[in-house]
Amino acid sequence: MSNELPLTPSFEKRGKLLIIGSIAFDDIETPFGKVRHTLGGSATYISLSASFFAKPSVVAVVGSDFHLHHRKIFESKKIDLSGLKKTKGKTFTWGGKYGFDVNNRTTIFTRLNVFKNFKPKLTSLHKNCPYVFLGNIHPSLQLEVLKQIKKPKLAGLDTMNFWIESEKKALTEALKLVDIFVINESEARQLAKEHNLLKAARQILSLMNLSVNRIPPVLIIKQGEHGLLLFQERRILNLPGYLLEDVLDPTGAGDCFAGGLMGYLTKTNNVSWQNLKKACVFGSVVASFCVEKMGTKRLQDLRPRDIDQRFKEFKKLTHF
Amino acid sequence: MSNELPLTPSFEKRGKLLIIGSIAFDDIETPFGKVRHTLGGSATYISLSASFFAKPSVVAVVGSDFHLHHRKIFESKKIDLSGLKKTKGKTFTWGGKYGFDVNNRTTIFTRLNVFKNFKPKLTSLHKNCPYVFLGNIHPSLQLEVLKQIKKPKLAGLDTMNFWIESEKKALTEALKLVDIFVINESEARQLAKEHNLLKAARQILSLMNLSVNRIPPVLIIKQGEHGLLLFQERRILNLPGYLLEDVLDPTGAGDCFAGGLMGYLTKTNNVSWQNLKKACVFGSVVASFCVEKMGTKRLQDLRPRDIDQRFKEFKKLTHF
Repeated sequence: MSNELPLTPSFEKRGKLLIIGSIAFDDIETPFGKVRHTLGGSATYISLSASFFAKPSVVAVVGSDFHLHHRKIFESKKIDLSGLKKTKGKTFTWGGKYGFDVNNRTTIFTRLNVFKNFKPKLTSLHKNCPYVFLGNIHPSLQLEVLKQIKKPKLAGLDTMNFWIESEKKALTEALKLVDIFVINESEARQLAKEHNLLKAARQILSLMNLSVNRIPPVLIIKQGEHGLLLFQERRILNLPGYLLEDVLDPTGAGDCFAGGLMGYLTKTNNVSWQNLKKACVFGSVVASFCVEKMGTKRLQDLRPRDIDQRFKEFKKLTHF
Repeated sequence: MSNELPLTPSFEKRGKLLIIGSIAFDDIETPFGKVRHTLGGSATYISLSASFFAKPSVVAVVGSDFHLHHRKIFESKKIDLSGLKKTKGKTFTWGGKYGFDVNNRTTIFTRLNVFKNFKPKLTSLHKNCPYVFLGNIHPSLQLEVLKQIKKPKLAGLDTMNFWIESEKKALTEALKLVDIFVINESEARQLAKEHNLLKAARQILSLMNLSVNRIPPVLIIKQGEHGLLLFQERRILNLPGYLLEDVLDPTGAGDCFAGGLMGYLTKTNNVSWQNLKKACVFGSVVASFCVEKMGTKRLQDLRPRDIDQRFKEFKKLTHF
């Protein structure tokens, strides 16, 4: 770990990571708490998480109910909001409820609002970002963004069951242009039409970017509290979830994982298998903190040394 | 790993492990195959698995339908059957069915037959075994056995939801006399009446043998294809499941785990935390082989070097 320190490089030296996704206001109910109209959305969680490692730029849209104190949450983490478009109307809102089994949630409502007309337009600064991550939005939008980007060193993508079902063609097109694909266990089975995860993974990898001047495609299957599976060629890492005494709110855990993963890869500018594994651990570590408090609260008070310490604990927890 | 070789010590040098449990004939149906009246039962799987590391002695009961070719399956692995009682009547039979989700199974029938009157009586050879494992039988029987044993170095125990529900008092008494307790995720939650596994584990550990001349109690929570959690004092190991392309028949996987675990501890005669972790990996490795074929088939043709190789693969799969 000595070569890891300092975990967070000085801001000037940080690598640039472009993040496209949603900014939302969430109503969340869990057996342990309830919050209303709290800052959420994939781009929010991804960028806050990535900010511990890299310099994220967010491309997203918000409504007139997005105020200065919301902006400050991003700015306190030096997140570039030059790609944030503010338009008339309300910001995307989502309401969800969790039971004791945090792997299952019920969506109470989804109001797209200004997000309905979101057409991400990249500035030249954003087009030249070497690292890019596309949060869970319509695959056609993801595709449009990918086509605008000059020559990313590494492009990652997240999606959801809804798009797999209704927009498989556009999703398949987008997958051909990305190096890292992050997906849930059930979504992997759904996309590959295969229950066995090893077979499903091979199938999905074969859909991804296979051009010789890219890294061999990387697939990450998230398994909620049971951790994740990382696949590249014949190599596999199986990482358990970090065991927590109190999971207050699982919202954003998957996005935090993606943010930590991409942030660490951006910071180290190294996409070797060894580093991909470490990036997955850092992603898991930030996600494990995120769920300890409601909404983005834990990410706001998280310190780099907390991340560093839990990384070490993760090693103890898994190595034999 | 170099200090691990040879994996299997010569038979004379192997440590003795006493195993009490059931021998049964199983009818098994999975999406991939179907077998009828195949050798099964907890003592069968535990002893076959342990035989790769130690010299197991089985105390169990069978009926007159237990023939020479069944006996030979044990004897080919040098398993001591001097504690096997053969009585008039039929051997315990069990029928079960699995869907694609191998973590869930349906019991079609359970016919206890001669097992109904099983009263394990230990010979002096068995009473002096330093390592003991009690497969999933009535907690009162487990308790009776534990009281007959002189001074075990290490005693382990398995149970099931049925006993937790109907025989909690006897189970609690038995737990006070054991060092290692192996239980499923849902059973742990049921026993502790607590959903969070970390809190459930602490509670269960507090029910176990706490006398100063024993090792600190060890709890293992099995999570099916998601691996296991090993707890001792404040220490935790979280081991994922070994990812398999084809899971033909999950029957006996939990017992194989216990057999490999106890076999390895018996072989090494070392109950340090470091060695407990390794024993869990060896248990998981044997279990991962077991499910590749129907019934005990894979255990019968398994070679020590297969185990050794998969142990190394397990390290690659989990270390970062």
